[in-house]
Amino acid sequence: MSASWSDRFEAHLEAAVLAHPGSSLVADLLSYHFGYGAYGPARRGKRLRPRLVVVAAQAEGGEIEAALDAAVAIEMVHNYSLIHDDIEDRDELRHGRPTLWARSGVPQALNAGDALCARSVLALADASAHHPPARVVRMIHALQRANLTMCDGQSLDLQFEREPHVDLAAYTTMIAGKTAAIFAAAGELGALCAGTDDAVGTYRALGSAYGLAFQIADDVHGIWAGEDATGKQPGTDIARRKWTYPVAWALSGPESAARSVVAQAYGRGEPLDRADVDRVVDALDALGAREAARRASAEHLARIERHPQGGVRDFLLGGDPPA
Amino acid sequence: MSASWSDRFEAHLEAAVLAHPGSSLVADLLSYHFGYGAYGPARRGKRLRPRLVVVAAQAEGGEIEAALDAAVAIEMVHNYSLIHDDIEDRDELRHGRPTLWARSGVPQALNAGDALCARSVLALADASAHHPPARVVRMIHALQRANLTMCDGQSLDLQFEREPHVDLAAYTTMIAGKTAAIFAAAGELGALCAGTDDAVGTYRALGSAYGLAFQIADDVHGIWAGEDATGKQPGTDIARRKWTYPVAWALSGPESAARSVVAQAYGRGEPLDRADVDRVVDALDALGAREAARRASAEHLARIERHPQGGVRDFLLGGDPPA
Repeated sequence: MSASWSDRFEAHLEAAVLAHPGSSLVADLLSYHFGYGAYGPARRGKRLRPRLVVVAAQAEGGEIEAALDAAVAIEMVHNYSLIHDDIEDRDELRHGRPTLWARSGVPQALNAGDALCARSVLALADASAHHPPARVVRMIHALQRANLTMCDGQSLDLQFEREPHVDLAAYTTMIAGKTAAIFAAAGELGALCAGTDDAVGTYRALGSAYGLAFQIADDVHGIWAGEDATGKQPGTDIARRKWTYPVAWALSGPESAARSVVAQAYGRGEPLDRADVDRVVDALDALGAREAARRASAEHLARIERHPQGGVRDFLLGGDPPA
Repeated sequence: MSASWSDRFEAHLEAAVLAHPGSSLVADLLSYHFGYGAYGPARRGKRLRPRLVVVAAQAEGGEIEAALDAAVAIEMVHNYSLIHDDIEDRDELRHGRPTLWARSGVPQALNAGDALCARSVLALADASAHHPPARVVRMIHALQRANLTMCDGQSLDLQFEREPHVDLAAYTTMIAGKTAAIFAAAGELGALCAGTDDAVGTYRALGSAYGLAFQIADDVHGIWAGEDATGKQPGTDIARRKWTYPVAWALSGPESAARSVVAQAYGRGEPLDRADVDRVVDALDALGAREAARRASAEHLARIERHPQGGVRDFLLGGDPPA
């Protein structure tokens, strides 16, 4: 995708975030979160979700201009969920900076996330300038349905921290909500922006497959990557007893000494200390859980491989993560 | 308004809340919040916002049926904000029951509030069955704009807890966001449901005036009513150093011994103990702050008095609070 697209998207997003009509305090909190103005420049992330909107729209013959509002809206939904997830998970750092709640307290951060969510709906309503209102309603419905499904997945993720056992099917349901729903919506919105109703289901499925692959790759990253790469302490997910693909896979396998290490550490039902985390990572290595996760991720991506539309396939399978 | 309207609204709301497509956990959390099923019956509140939607729609010749989705959506926005505000304010009780976060923890409650907010947009998108899509987009825009303004007001309310002084103008800006915006949207949605675009501004203004009066009356209630009436400890707002109308009014007046009591208690910039609260309430009584608040509330209601449409005037000035 061209640098000029990126510039236009970033300008559009920043204008929408900063054009906050009311209290300058909420605008200031969101500026900090996005790293705007005096708070910048902050690491922007890969903008994968809005890029998928635009790539899908272009693949179906749509104009970039007509996809910008949807791209901005989906990035806003993603970011409101990051602000709230950081509160829920008590994460104090994101990309090496204090998270919004760690800096400004839970009440103001929670409320600023709510404002950003409301702003995302307004951004999509603005798409009326480029699309007939019936399509705008459909886009708003698609994105908020994904938001709802994302909340379901997040709820399961939180609940799983206390479950004695989570199997691969339950894990997949959880990440299908927490992570894949918004990628599915990105594909869907892209197709809708191009006005190609017939293709909507296909792009939703492509986005979903990508999201599942992305989350499994992210799980691997969180366990095995060094601190520099992720900006968070490796093993944090295990310390919190999060159910990631490698752990759910390992515990679904046959009895073994290594499996028992994982089962015992997770079986206590409480957070793991550093020594436990190291033992679990060694056991996952011994079981081949990292390779198993790579295979699972590749299987989801293989569904994209068969997609005839080269642009989207190249974007999803191209230079960027997850793989 | 007829009992049959109330029944239809309650059935519509409950169906929309329980028709949660994904995790049964989120549906269960929301069932608890609303007091459905095994968690019921809970006190329902007065449903003032959805009733205003329907009364305004009827006053302009609209059908109840065509206003139900908007009525449900606005009650959902109100309730998601209650769930989040309870977290932000650390309120452990609402109508005598543990609040959602007090029962299920902040992470799950925060996330369930997000889900309810998403659900509110979907409920309004469903209004496509009764309204042309351009009007649905306008309704979604009106409600989410109010949601955004509500977040602004809430942000100010939280910030004011630390401010050395808040004058009446700043107080009014805060409640115009925190409380009046959603009443304004209720009027606006009602007029839109009736298809009377010309009247939208009038109903927005009526709703806003009512919301301002409502919040000032609620401030008085929170300071002077007994525990039975509000379900929360009287004086809580003062203990938390909240800027209510009586306090902002008292501190905007001339120097006096009673004013100094309030100024000193609020000037320390930290929560007040029980003895301080009692001293502040006595001082507010001595200054006539309760009467001043009643006058301010009545002035806002007087703007409704002049409204030619009897149905809305009777509803807003009728048997129910705020007055």
